[in-house]
Amino acid sequence: MTSKTAAPSTALQSSEKRFLKALRGEPTDRPPIWLMRQAGRYLPEYKERRAVAGSFLDLCYTPEHAIEVTLQPIRRFGFDASILFSDILVIPDALGQPVRFEEGIGPVLEPITTAAQIDALDGDRVLDHLMPVFKTVSGLRAALPDETALIGFAGAPWTVATYMVGGRGSPDQGAAKALGYNEPETFQRLIDLLTEVTGDYLIAQVVAGAEALQIFDTWAGSLPAPYFRKWCLEPMRRLRARLADQCPNVPVIGFPKGVGASYETYIRETGINAISIDTGVDPAWAAKVLQPLGTVQGNLDPLALVAGGETMRESALHILDTLGHGPFVFNLGHGIVPHTPPEHVGELVELVKEWKP
Amino acid sequence: MTSKTAAPSTALQSSEKRFLKALRGEPTDRPPIWLMRQAGRYLPEYKERRAVAGSFLDLCYTPEHAIEVTLQPIRRFGFDASILFSDILVIPDALGQPVRFEEGIGPVLEPITTAAQIDALDGDRVLDHLMPVFKTVSGLRAALPDETALIGFAGAPWTVATYMVGGRGSPDQGAAKALGYNEPETFQRLIDLLTEVTGDYLIAQVVAGAEALQIFDTWAGSLPAPYFRKWCLEPMRRLRARLADQCPNVPVIGFPKGVGASYETYIRETGINAISIDTGVDPAWAAKVLQPLGTVQGNLDPLALVAGGETMRESALHILDTLGHGPFVFNLGHGIVPHTPPEHVGELVELVKEWKP
Repeated sequence: MTSKTAAPSTALQSSEKRFLKALRGEPTDRPPIWLMRQAGRYLPEYKERRAVAGSFLDLCYTPEHAIEVTLQPIRRFGFDASILFSDILVIPDALGQPVRFEEGIGPVLEPITTAAQIDALDGDRVLDHLMPVFKTVSGLRAALPDETALIGFAGAPWTVATYMVGGRGSPDQGAAKALGYNEPETFQRLIDLLTEVTGDYLIAQVVAGAEALQIFDTWAGSLPAPYFRKWCLEPMRRLRARLADQCPNVPVIGFPKGVGASYETYIRETGINAISIDTGVDPAWAAKVLQPLGTVQGNLDPLALVAGGETMRESALHILDTLGHGPFVFNLGHGIVPHTPPEHVGELVELVKEWKP
Repeated sequence: MTSKTAAPSTALQSSEKRFLKALRGEPTDRPPIWLMRQAGRYLPEYKERRAVAGSFLDLCYTPEHAIEVTLQPIRRFGFDASILFSDILVIPDALGQPVRFEEGIGPVLEPITTAAQIDALDGDRVLDHLMPVFKTVSGLRAALPDETALIGFAGAPWTVATYMVGGRGSPDQGAAKALGYNEPETFQRLIDLLTEVTGDYLIAQVVAGAEALQIFDTWAGSLPAPYFRKWCLEPMRRLRARLADQCPNVPVIGFPKGVGASYETYIRETGINAISIDTGVDPAWAAKVLQPLGTVQGNLDPLALVAGGETMRESALHILDTLGHGPFVFNLGHGIVPHTPPEHVGELVELVKEWKP
């Protein structure tokens, strides 16, 4: 993939979409809103579709189903952006490390912990394996309302590696750290491979029609500074540089969850356009330190959305009043949880749409 | 408890101890070192004692056993400080909400979620119930080597409340947040009660002989800024003011784990002497932003201690070289994990003791 790529044209030029303007730091009539995991189990229509789709990966790999569940929250709530329905672990699956999702556990993989196993991963099959995802992206681009931007995404190398090495989620990413600390060269090979194929994957999403990209580094916050630099910052800087070269007009959002004061280092050193912040970040700090460097996205507590009422209202207004005057995208600090009442989501969207700077 | 209290005298004056000098911001010949959970399952002698002590709470409530396991790592490694062996959940247990510890699960409590249940908690029985803890403290003070400082501790109100309301640990503190978001006045009553009895408890530890106090707010990092202020910052400010009044010479260390850039707000607004930082905090940021405000304690990754060798050595030296020139206490960013080889702990202690500013 070496030629420059451009998204297909639509009725409304991408450049006019509220979400993309905000990511470029241009003024908007109001802050755009979308929510992480806006397609998902809190919606009855999602559960219906999920029940007939087969496994969770079948849902991700069948464009008809993936397009439908991606569109469901757009129809209901009119979000300003739509995010491709998929999972960050399609990358190991595509590399030849099969992934399955078990009820009550989450993703399960056969752990990869040796240099030989890493060398056996096949980066060349990734784009073929993920062809259904690109079909979903192009189908979505055709199906979405003119004003709705389409976000492609991937997991960051470190976070994806924690699942590949650990075989599942863990509170301390102990397995990946053990490999990285005990065999730094072997682990770096995995990080480098993931950086490469994640770049291929994201560029192919842009070719298929993605207008912005978000890269999720959910476990970045557990790394000591020197390792955060090696396994998070540096791969993201390389990835961002490649994307800037191959698809220069596509804005990139980083989400190195839980990194605290290092959000500043991350946006400063990687060259991303926007940064998504978790619930624990003080919006006043983000307005002062991060907004001068790029667009800030976040950070309502998903559990305030569950609570609804005055708590949700006050929490959302606090964020809007603090961050809404600079380049800003309203979002949660983490994904929607399954027991969220859909009507609270509707109320939140109305509140954001009615807020005046 | 209204009269001013003073620790009993020992051969070496408290004021001369390396650890206490560092907490007061005075120069020391080398950085002091102790490790969170330095008494625990990674030590064979701990497991032996644990096996004969009965339940985990029996271990905490039997001064003979609690003193022994507290002293074990001091004998082995010669740490500069010793921390009372106990648990943050003795407070709910003392308030009349029984706690038990189950293998593979952790603490289990009958959840408290209503105003009536909160009002039924009995703050007046706390000091009587915890008398064995104070006996442990005074026994330790007599048994410890002259140069070893004795730390008392408690959980912060928010973190203790998450267990009381949730009935056990949870990744998102969902139950406590639900109560706090849906019934703010009820939840505030619980926070206020905990702030009060935690003050009683810490003052009684000082009366018994504790020379410094650490307050653990393990789950502070998941709260949005306005709630972090209400449930973490403000209770800590009140607690610290009361301690300053009742035992003005006893330094206080705060550990609001995972709060990122808000570590600065926390040390600035609560008036604590020292702040313990988690593994994800960049030591360079802590040196620049936090050390001018107080002593910094931290923040080796417990998993780098498990790895040992070059990783441990380089990680520890990076922290020492960055923070060792200001007021500093060497520690981990989180507790020692059970599969830590004890010989790595010995090597770390030697490394810190030999390091020269």
